[in-house]
Amino acid sequence: MRDALVAAAFQLFLERGYEQTTIDDIVALAGVGRRSFFRYFPSKEDVVFPDHERCLADMTAFLASGGDEHEPVQRVCDAARLVLRMYNENPTFSVQRYRLTKKVPGLRAYELSVVWRYERALADYLRGRFAGRPDGTLQADVIAAAVVAAHNNALRSWLRSDGQRDAATEVDHALGYVQSAFGNPPAPAAVQVQQQPEDVVVVVSRRDAPLWRVVQEIESALGRD
Amino acid sequence: MRDALVAAAFQLFLERGYEQTTIDDIVALAGVGRRSFFRYFPSKEDVVFPDHERCLADMTAFLASGGDEHEPVQRVCDAARLVLRMYNENPTFSVQRYRLTKKVPGLRAYELSVVWRYERALADYLRGRFAGRPDGTLQADVIAAAVVAAHNNALRSWLRSDGQRDAATEVDHALGYVQSAFGNPPAPAAVQVQQQPEDVVVVVSRRDAPLWRVVQEIESALGRD
Repeated sequence: MRDALVAAAFQLFLERGYEQTTIDDIVALAGVGRRSFFRYFPSKEDVVFPDHERCLADMTAFLASGGDEHEPVQRVCDAARLVLRMYNENPTFSVQRYRLTKKVPGLRAYELSVVWRYERALADYLRGRFAGRPDGTLQADVIAAAVVAAHNNALRSWLRSDGQRDAATEVDHALGYVQSAFGNPPAPAAVQVQQQPEDVVVVVSRRDAPLWRVVQEIESALGRD
Repeated sequence: MRDALVAAAFQLFLERGYEQTTIDDIVALAGVGRRSFFRYFPSKEDVVFPDHERCLADMTAFLASGGDEHEPVQRVCDAARLVLRMYNENPTFSVQRYRLTKKVPGLRAYELSVVWRYERALADYLRGRFAGRPDGTLQADVIAAAVVAAHNNALRSWLRSDGQRDAATEVDHALGYVQSAFGNPPAPAAVQVQQQPEDVVVVVSRRDAPLWRVVQEIESALGRD
């Protein structure tokens, strides 16, 4: 019944416009009563974004399930990918909704509040992980905002392509930019070598470090000597 | 008259609560007519944030006035400082409003839409400055979001201190974190060499890249051959 309500609502939104459609119109088309509508959706706005509550719950559970073995920035990027997956489950619906949201200011405001909740979920997780750092809350807030902005940049670019481009590739690329900026904070060590996922080696070195020292670190990172 | 309306509105918001105060109550206390209220403010929400339109206009003008001589990330950080200055012009009022906004969900939603407009102003400027870059819009959106998040983290921490801490110092510190992360954006190469602030060299390499290739990249990054 929930799906039938969403389908009826979108049929009417596309035919008549969002503002011109009432909840009575939606329940009439879906063949159910008003109380059924409100059992699933608190308001007309909510039927436009029927899956965000579930996705927010999934994201929170995903973040809570991780331990110290997960690199924190990587983990929030993976959490953001859950939102993409939700959009990608039904590209036609997502593209229709994108066009609708752009036209209706009230839906833009609703969307901002949803985006804010995702951002807070990511920031709260990072605040926990960064609890011991001097600027932990600052770093958590900034990285969460950057992850959300990167994800949404890629998501919008995919939606503007009418779902034609590959959503996962676009989002991976965008999140890669955030990870390159924040994934490896320049630590004060003279020479520091870390292993990254996907078989990449990252070397961070002071510019004035002797070359032999840098090479030595790379060799030991690569397991060659 | 505008200031008198703001003063009357806040006196009533603090005495009775925001929801319990009508526009009629505000104009009665200020001793003016309803039309005078609507000449200055489109709605009751707007009287809570009387200076954002001016500040947004100031920010846009500031960004438009700069040329290529300004480093782009530095420039958007300086633009964000204009918002801080507005809050800092009247700390008592800003702290009162902060407490009010936290309690009233409708005002939180209004604030999110204002924050979004600031973020768009910064992102639009950066998109112009990064127009030639392959990932220009992505980088612009991410950096704008990071600047806004850093600014707001510091602003909230100042507001929570009841305006006791030094706002400019807090915001400078927060924006410094963003500048350290994005002062020199990365390029997308297989073997990729970047120069970071603080004279650090970052080399990202596939794990299976031949060692000579990695060393060659480091040498050219360090300017040694």
